[in-house]
Amino acid sequence: MNRKIVIVGLGLIGGSLAKAFQKYTQCQIAGIDRNPDVLKAALECGAIDKIASEADIQEADVLYLCLYPQADIDFAAAHAHLIPPHCVVTDTCGIKAEICAHLPRIAREHGFAFVGGHPMAGKEQSGFTSSDADLFLDASYILVPCDAPQQAVGLLKEIAKALRFGGTVEATPEKHDRMIAFTSQLPHVLACAYVMSPSCPEHNGFSAGSYRDVSRVANINEALWAELFIDNREALMEELDILIANITMLKDAVSKKDAEALRALLCKSRQIKEMLGE
Amino acid sequence: MNRKIVIVGLGLIGGSLAKAFQKYTQCQIAGIDRNPDVLKAALECGAIDKIASEADIQEADVLYLCLYPQADIDFAAAHAHLIPPHCVVTDTCGIKAEICAHLPRIAREHGFAFVGGHPMAGKEQSGFTSSDADLFLDASYILVPCDAPQQAVGLLKEIAKALRFGGTVEATPEKHDRMIAFTSQLPHVLACAYVMSPSCPEHNGFSAGSYRDVSRVANINEALWAELFIDNREALMEELDILIANITMLKDAVSKKDAEALRALLCKSRQIKEMLGE
Repeated sequence: MNRKIVIVGLGLIGGSLAKAFQKYTQCQIAGIDRNPDVLKAALECGAIDKIASEADIQEADVLYLCLYPQADIDFAAAHAHLIPPHCVVTDTCGIKAEICAHLPRIAREHGFAFVGGHPMAGKEQSGFTSSDADLFLDASYILVPCDAPQQAVGLLKEIAKALRFGGTVEATPEKHDRMIAFTSQLPHVLACAYVMSPSCPEHNGFSAGSYRDVSRVANINEALWAELFIDNREALMEELDILIANITMLKDAVSKKDAEALRALLCKSRQIKEMLGE
Repeated sequence: MNRKIVIVGLGLIGGSLAKAFQKYTQCQIAGIDRNPDVLKAALECGAIDKIASEADIQEADVLYLCLYPQADIDFAAAHAHLIPPHCVVTDTCGIKAEICAHLPRIAREHGFAFVGGHPMAGKEQSGFTSSDADLFLDASYILVPCDAPQQAVGLLKEIAKALRFGGTVEATPEKHDRMIAFTSQLPHVLACAYVMSPSCPEHNGFSAGSYRDVSRVANINEALWAELFIDNREALMEELDILIANITMLKDAVSKKDAEALRALLCKSRQIKEMLGE
């Protein structure tokens, strides 16, 4: 694996991609970030080989957009004239409807390929200082090909394998966003709602794994997630309504002291986990 | 540490206590379980030194009740006449109001000491086969002394230290149950409500840590938890109402596309976690 890579945005995800490329491939990595301190740090630790010039974009084999959704679209629109036809452009955003409403069109107009991408890995901490070459180890990598040629999708899969992702799945933007509303956005809303209880500040000494797990992602990057939640609001609100209805159903059984109904509901949950082998 | 210990109920918690005593102390452990296969397994692996006879109860320094709440009360009532005055009886139940409405009275009537206890450790799997000498490593141990003499509380603290618990806290039954509703019961209700979404069976390939963490405890022992939820229904329902209100507040901000309000709410959650050093 020896390609010219440009990574735009060296935060947690972009920085981790750069470090993974350096650790596991022979690719040449050029980086872009609006923060000069981040670029300096990335150069100094060897996460990037150089700060990307216009010429680097013009020669890129793969360009990773690792900004927030709207910023990714803006960057691609502003630099599309530099991107060569053989280049595969991809993003790492947590939602795809908005990205896929713009990027495939920009790509078509300028003759390069766009494939949506979402590495299913994260951390409670954000920024380059939290980035890690092994953040993606065994993680799933979701690809949203839209109308990109299979060759472009194949290249991203090959890279994902080299970077030690656990596997790739393909989805439409709609399926991606619907699933992410459940697997990722809902737990983040939940964690935030959970820690707002007046009991939370007193939890020390009275808590263990279940507190730790449900509250973990409440340490949230509010600017990023507010944008993600609002961009995916239909799917997220549907999951929130389902969740509130299910909590209410359990609450009603508790309220009525209906042990049989409560056991039946809890049993159903256990069986779902068992069916999934978890 | 060289005491005579009787453990009633060799499930996940009782079995783990037995194994921890064997690993970290010189105590003699006698076990009671209604399932002869469990007693056989516990004897064979050395978790207990013997099956407890009436004489063992009559000589016990500490007796651990590790059954479900009502069964603990029933066992104590039926065997109270055997328990010697120097013995400290404790339980390991997840809620304390019901236990502490009965056990201190039974203890007073028969002249032994009762101290409520709650090791803050667990697993998704239950039963003796899942028990582990190191289940309590660094876990908090909540003691609910009620009207027990300080010496009895001190002995349980000394044992907890020997068994490598992380620390002990003392609480009234009311405070214990209120905190547990938040730290433990609420995450269990949440996990069960969460996996009931029709999206759950499709999550593979689209999920990562936040799915795994919030759904983990949905693999629930429904008989035990239905009893715990209903016994603690007032505190649990209060936390459920608070949670539903907080989720709804976040949902309203998403629904109105009010990025500013949403960021403010998420920021509040992040600050709570930061204030707690998490």
